[in-house]
Amino acid sequence: MKTILLLIAAVIMPLSAADRPFGLVLHGGAGVIDRTALTPAREAEYRAKLTEAREAGYAVLERGGTALDAVIAAIVILEDSPLFNAGKGAVFTADGTCELDASIMDGRTQAAGAVAGVKRIKNPITLARSVMEKSSHVMLAGEGAEKFAQQQGFAFVPNEYFHTEHRRQQLEAAKKKAAAKKTAALETQADRAARYGTVGCVALDRAGHLAAGTSTGGMTNKRFGRVGDAPIIGAGTYAHDATCAISATGWGEYFIRVGVARDIAAQIEYRGTPLKEAAAATLAKVAALGGDGGVIGLDRAGNLTMPFNTQGMYRGWRLSNGTEGVAIFASP
Amino acid sequence: MKTILLLIAAVIMPLSAADRPFGLVLHGGAGVIDRTALTPAREAEYRAKLTEAREAGYAVLERGGTALDAVIAAIVILEDSPLFNAGKGAVFTADGTCELDASIMDGRTQAAGAVAGVKRIKNPITLARSVMEKSSHVMLAGEGAEKFAQQQGFAFVPNEYFHTEHRRQQLEAAKKKAAAKKTAALETQADRAARYGTVGCVALDRAGHLAAGTSTGGMTNKRFGRVGDAPIIGAGTYAHDATCAISATGWGEYFIRVGVARDIAAQIEYRGTPLKEAAAATLAKVAALGGDGGVIGLDRAGNLTMPFNTQGMYRGWRLSNGTEGVAIFASP
Repeated sequence: MKTILLLIAAVIMPLSAADRPFGLVLHGGAGVIDRTALTPAREAEYRAKLTEAREAGYAVLERGGTALDAVIAAIVILEDSPLFNAGKGAVFTADGTCELDASIMDGRTQAAGAVAGVKRIKNPITLARSVMEKSSHVMLAGEGAEKFAQQQGFAFVPNEYFHTEHRRQQLEAAKKKAAAKKTAALETQADRAARYGTVGCVALDRAGHLAAGTSTGGMTNKRFGRVGDAPIIGAGTYAHDATCAISATGWGEYFIRVGVARDIAAQIEYRGTPLKEAAAATLAKVAALGGDGGVIGLDRAGNLTMPFNTQGMYRGWRLSNGTEGVAIFASP
Repeated sequence: MKTILLLIAAVIMPLSAADRPFGLVLHGGAGVIDRTALTPAREAEYRAKLTEAREAGYAVLERGGTALDAVIAAIVILEDSPLFNAGKGAVFTADGTCELDASIMDGRTQAAGAVAGVKRIKNPITLARSVMEKSSHVMLAGEGAEKFAQQQGFAFVPNEYFHTEHRRQQLEAAKKKAAAKKTAALETQADRAARYGTVGCVALDRAGHLAAGTSTGGMTNKRFGRVGDAPIIGAGTYAHDATCAISATGWGEYFIRVGVARDIAAQIEYRGTPLKEAAAATLAKVAALGGDGGVIGLDRAGNLTMPFNTQGMYRGWRLSNGTEGVAIFASP
């Protein structure tokens, strides 16, 4: 009897699974993106890398892999690219080092993992996953997180691995600006730009499970061990199969106060708001407090949203219904 | 005309303010509280300290002070007492040091501040407030948070200030137990007890503003720079004048995953669930995942709730309508 049921299941499952929507959305940060400084060649580089990450994640989903694996596959590529403020190419702290944060959440189980302030892990998103799967904790910070990484057999890279000349110049510029300001005057767009740039991915797999992940180098000229929204479950990252998967990018302090990722999911959970409206309402809360940024989201039905209230947001998406693209400016 | 309006306001305001409910609820941690080990003398000590903290906070509110000031007044007393796992009397990490976390949120503005892993600040809740009011950040971790404290003129205490013999013995017991376990077997109640104990306070002032704060020493034998829910805005602490103020205590990992404090507020915000029902529903989510603990909450109308699904939760409350008490066992 059991065997017959298993055989029936084996025949039926792939058919019903074939009808299920799947896909992913990813971002490479929202913020001030200077159209004039973005040469066609540079823009092509961004588009190529976003496409590469998108296709890597999509390939995982297409062959029946999990949303979690797809999120990791996409984010690792963005972390490895010097174009984005995560992993290699992360911004510098005031001390001239790179400190990385990442988090991940499994919509199937609401398991979550996060690391804050790690300095020698090539792909922080993989360490966040390890915290989720191999420790009894959700969040590990600083040297403690690296001790855990060591115990888990992670390879370490010197902090210099993350350094890029571009980010070094950003730090110098930020320091000059900070020194020139006698008071905490209104900040310029360049200051604000220093705050953004994070990568993230949300995915829905063929089994109907959602996952979300976010990884960042934080903000240029960061001091005092500042922790932004990226490693905070409920702020930068959230996933629940019953509602949606969200990854955020923006002015972290406001995203924490609003609890952006969880707030979007809560609207779906408690009043049935469609994903797109929920995300817009939450971003409006951020704006009302004085912050800005963007989010990417995907719900269980395969609806996606990618709103931002900044000049641009690097993003890519591909769904099993054929919808796909990469974009930098103009909210779709 | 302006003068007349101000005069009218001056006469009317105190009258209407006099009708407004105000008050506070505080907790000294939820968890395994051994009735047999809690001698009458020891229980009297807990009750006296809870009452002292409650009255200190209430006095602030009674004389027209802010909810924020009341939260600080109550929590500082609990931090200074060796009875609770926060400030003096905090539990030891695996390294034999005390590492403290705290967070605070202002319901009026949704401003928030948090510190994680500080070792030399006598009252971490006051540093969390300083992060909220004097920095552009929400969360500072580790040595960076202490550098900020130094800049703000905080007095430092040696880590030994926090040490107590009772907690030293708990660490030794936890280490022995950990060493005895070859595998990650089912944990005993004593293990679980090591996880709990946090202090917190929520307050509603005469002006109708809410605030929430939480402070903890984390978990005994803590390793890897683990961060629990106490310093996470939306998990351990949340306040919004439009909904409620919440402080949580319990198995931090589950409280982060559920986003306990924000989840309670979200139910009020998005489907008008009464505070008490919302808090119960959120704690049920924690239980469904395998966690436990408790929360205290106060809404804008002065309704309070103090549910927990552990053996006990140290708590105290006093409202302007005359309701008051302190309790350890049996949910009211």
